[in-house]
Parts: sequence; structure tokens; C-alpha cells
Amino acid sequence: MSTGALGEFELIARLTRDLESRADVLLGVGDDAALLRPPSGELLVATCDAQVAGQHFTLAASSAEEIGHKALAVNLSDLAATGAAPLWALVSLHLPRGLALETLDGIYAGIRALARRFDVAIVGGNITATEGPLAVDVTMLGACPPGRVLTRAGGRPGHALLLIGALGAAAAGVLAEAHPTELASLAPALRARAHQAHCAPEPLVLEGQVLAATGTTSALIDVSDGLAGDLGHICERSQVGAVIEAAALPIDPAAAAIARVLDRDPLDLALHGGEDYALLGSVPQEAIEHTLSALRAAGSAATIIGALTEPADGLRLRRAEGREIALEPRGWDHLLDHP
Amino acid sequence: MSTGALGEFELIARLTRDLESRADVLLGVGDDAALLRPPSGELLVATCDAQVAGQHFTLAASSAEEIGHKALAVNLSDLAATGAAPLWALVSLHLPRGLALETLDGIYAGIRALARRFDVAIVGGNITATEGPLAVDVTMLGACPPGRVLTRAGGRPGHALLLIGALGAAAAGVLAEAHPTELASLAPALRARAHQAHCAPEPLVLEGQVLAATGTTSALIDVSDGLAGDLGHICERSQVGAVIEAAALPIDPAAAAIARVLDRDPLDLALHGGEDYALLGSVPQEAIEHTLSALRAAGSAATIIGALTEPADGLRLRRAEGREIALEPRGWDHLLDHP
Repeated sequence: MSTGALGEFELIARLTRDLESRADVLLGVGDDAALLRPPSGELLVATCDAQVAGQHFTLAASSAEEIGHKALAVNLSDLAATGAAPLWALVSLHLPRGLALETLDGIYAGIRALARRFDVAIVGGNITATEGPLAVDVTMLGACPPGRVLTRAGGRPGHALLLIGALGAAAAGVLAEAHPTELASLAPALRARAHQAHCAPEPLVLEGQVLAATGTTSALIDVSDGLAGDLGHICERSQVGAVIEAAALPIDPAAAAIARVLDRDPLDLALHGGEDYALLGSVPQEAIEHTLSALRAAGSAATIIGALTEPADGLRLRRAEGREIALEPRGWDHLLDHP
Repeated sequence: MSTGALGEFELIARLTRDLESRADVLLGVGDDAALLRPPSGELLVATCDAQVAGQHFTLAASSAEEIGHKALAVNLSDLAATGAAPLWALVSLHLPRGLALETLDGIYAGIRALARRFDVAIVGGNITATEGPLAVDVTMLGACPPGRVLTRAGGRPGHALLLIGALGAAAAGVLAEAHPTELASLAPALRARAHQAHCAPEPLVLEGQVLAATGTTSALIDVSDGLAGDLGHICERSQVGAVIEAAALPIDPAAAAIARVLDRDPLDLALHGGEDYALLGSVPQEAIEHTLSALRAAGSAATIIGALTEPADGLRLRRAEGREIALEPRGWDHLLDHP
């Protein structure tokens, strides 16, 4: 059955039936607006990000559940970079004519499953028809005590650069979609790993909260545009330079394997691939041990991948053999007209 | 110049340069998320709505500024229906390849002009490319003291139905776009009125706040899907029936004139046209005078258009000659496959 066989209100009722809620949701989906009780004395944290078919996913490569999962995950990742606790989300759907109802059901199932895991209530949204591709636009709200919230600013020369997560797997997942024949002999587990990184990334929400709670993290960002690009954002906002140790970068095994088969540089995937949804932070040298042990206690791990430097140094990469080169702070920019 | 000549970060910098802010915005556009200080002790009110080219507007009929204005206005109207004070908005843009930069500038100028009038800070957003039509997806946040917020529930049999604003003009604007030749002799002021109602509606934010402040409004909704459809929402949530007096409906003069020329029933435009962005509320009979005088003091006016009844009565229309007929609670549903 096509979504067009149902009207807007029937679709909304179908998707939001028995929606999980939270005690701080006084009124969720179904009125002109949601009524929410923000945690007393805390700051509100707000972000939004859209996933558009043909740009961020394809219906051929991703399951409907994965599309929903990713639409929420990329927003949770932004929130993770502030250390906030996620609370509520609003989901705006752009539906092409003739979209199968089961696809829409699957998208919402993916959204709800991830929302449940992070105790996020879907409190509002919108459904519109479009002559264009399917799009899922999510706004995510969270909260954080005022003194504890993390931003891209606050990094200082000398602070160590800490990375939680691995790099390059999502970019390798894109490559794997484009080159199925060349990668036919790849181990299924590696292919699945790259696929999941690209189509159903895991937001590091708890890790962001642990970093905020330590009180020692000076800056934090989620690596969504590529490590080099996002490190560039920290440098810009913190007014510092940075040097990355190539040998220290935690390149995902799937990225390494796929790069090898396709004769690509795994370092390039790690630096510029994008969509890693890792967390990149800075901590004073004397706080490294404390920070790593706090992460360990929470069942997580981090890698020291370099350090912040004086602003005049710019962004540099120290290659494995010791030579330092300038690093371009570029990620993949899907808005640019690429030649 | 096309938007594709600039990258995502250049576009964001261009659009958000010298963005108006508020004292409660600790960090606006430019980090992973915005940091906001909600008014102490108040409830948060959240809503989202999208405007999509070909569905809600066309670039041929609307100026870029009007598109931006409307994208914000429809959300302000939802917030108005709760009586909340608007605070912050997030703007998610879906940009087709090759969109002229001046169109994007115009859209943002329209958004900013209306935001300025209602003291709304644009605190975040997203820009994505799309192979589909231009879309502007807005999430709006506001706040309201807990005891004062209005919803669609709370109406009781006997309560008077009160309408602020006029009906049918936006639907007449759609008709005027489709029938320029037949309407060539229409007075330019009426044509302009219908155009503005359709392309740049005025959200009744202050009127919603006045109704909330009276303490006597039992239910409120904004009329966006058509009077009959939105009254149906109040009836459903308040578990009441309703009767509307056809003779009392404030049909916009532009709607009346355009309907006459095109041989359409103006009552049909008023009941089912949609996009009026009027406010429809219910008040106990003994509070009518107090409510109307509070609105008058704020420079506004309302019309009593009927009353809520027992639920078993359903939705009825009393025609001018006195005969009562059942009223279908339908508005325009652009998601349905129309034959």
C-alpha cells in the first residue's frame, strides 16, 4: 500500500500510536505544539540535521529501519558533542508520492528503536508530500547543567587531542556500495562493519556525557565532516593550531581492508572521509590519565591522536616517518558543485 | 551566482552573519548545537512545519522573502495556538542544485524580518543539497507559564466559538494564481490581499497570548487545514460537538470577490479552504465579554461564529436560512492521492 492511500492525520496516528514518552512530556504529538518541562536550572541544547535520499542514503543500500536510525543518530551525535542528555525530538518527514507504507513504517521503527535506547521522546513532527526524494529532518533537544556543557571553543595549545571511535569505516562503506565486484572476496564481517558505519552509525552519547562530567575536557566536536575538517572547526573556534600523528590514528579495520583492495590510501579515508560520528576532544596533558580512566570506567576507550598547538602553526600531520606536512581542513562538502 | 559555488560553511556564514540574538541564547549558530536558557519555571512549547516548493508555494508565485516569511509564520501560528511566547527557531534548508544565491538570500531575509518582529532568535539549522524541490523546514520553540498554556482540549458544550482573523483569503489566493485571465478585472487591492494571505500570512501570536492571559479560553487551535477540519480537531480532543452559524463567518472580502467572479461558493472557501492562520477558540458564555474586551484592548477583534455542543450532535452548520446540516470535518489533505 502506498502512503498516499492514507491522509496526513491517519499517517500521523499510525506512526505515533503508543509512542514512548517521558515524565517531562506534558503533551506530545497531537496538538498544535508539544508541551515540555525542561529540567530545572539546566541549559537547553538544540540541534537539527536532515537525511535526504540520494545525498545521505539510498533506499537501495539502506533498509528503512537504518534510514530512521541514522536520521536520529546524526542528531544524537551532535548532542553528544556538548555532553548533554538527550530529551526530546521532532521528526519532519518529506514523503515522495507512492512511497510504500511499509517503508515509512520501517523508518519510524528505526527512529523509535534508537529513541528508546537513549530515552528520547518523539514529541512532535510534520508530514509533507514532496515531488522530490524522501527526506527525514530531525530536531533534537537535550539539557545539561550550565557549568558542564562542552563546545568547540576552549582548546589551548598543548592540550592533547583525544578521539573516541574509529575512522574511515563510513567512507569505506560508501566505496563498498560503489564497487561490489572488486570487493566480492572481502570478509562478510568487514563488509557488514563498513555498511553499518555508513548506514546505521552509533552515536557516542554516553561518551560525550562522561567527557563533560570529568570537568577536564576543554573542547569537543563530533567528527561528521571528516577528521581534518572537524579538527579545523575546533582550531577556528578555540583559536589554536593542531598536529595529528598519522601513526596514532585509529583507522577502522574495515576501512583499512577496503582501501587496500581498492588501492586507496586508508589515511585519506580517515582524514577526509566523513560520517564517522566519532568524538574528537581536547584535554590538558595533566588530565589525560583521569579522562581515560573515566572513559574506561564507563566501558569506553579513547586514543590520543595528537595535540593542539599555537595558532600560527596551523593544521599539520606528522607522517609515520616523522615528516610534518600541512593538513587541509577539508571534509566532503556535498553542497559544492564538484567538477 | 548559484548556491553550489559556495560550500556549506560559506553559505551558513553568509546567511547567519550578524544574526539577531536574545539574552537567553548562550551560543547560537556555529557549534554542534545551540545553548539556550529556558525561562525559569515555564513550560517549553515546541512545534515544526515544513514548506515545500510545489506543495505549499511556487517560486513563480511567491517572492523569496515571502517563502521565508511563510516558513516561519506557519510555525509562529502553531505556537500562537498555545498562547506561548516565541523564543527560538531552527531552520533546515533543502537546496536544489543551481538555486540562485539571491533566492536563498531572499528567503533568509524573509525569515529574519519576521523573526525580528516577534523577537525570535534563529539559533541553529542545517543546509542540505537535494535533487528535489526547495524546502524550508522550521522548528520553533517558545515558553509559557504552566497554568496558562492552551490546547485543543478543554472545550465544553455551551462554550462559544470565537474566531480571530478572516476566512477564505488564502484559498482565494490559490484560485487567483490559477485563473489570472478570469480575474483580470479584479480590484488590485483584493488581488493583493488574497496573494498576501496565501504567500505571506500573518501569525496571530499576540492574539494567542491575550487569549491565554484571560484565563477564560477553554480551547484554542490555529486554522491551518480549513475551519471545518480544525474545528473537528477541537471536537475530537475536547470530546464535544459543535454548530457553526454560516451567516456569522467572517469571510474575507477578497475571498468573497474572487469566489463571485469564479462562480465558487465563498462558504466552501471559508469552511474548507485552509491556510487561513486564523485562531479558533472556545470560551464559556459568561466570559465572552471579558475575552472580547481583552482582545479589543490589545487592538484586536474576534467574531462569535457558533458554539460547542454535546458530542452526540457532531459537527453541524446552521445555514443562513436556519436549516442545520452536518458538516464534514475535512480540510485539504495534500498527502492523499486525489483522483
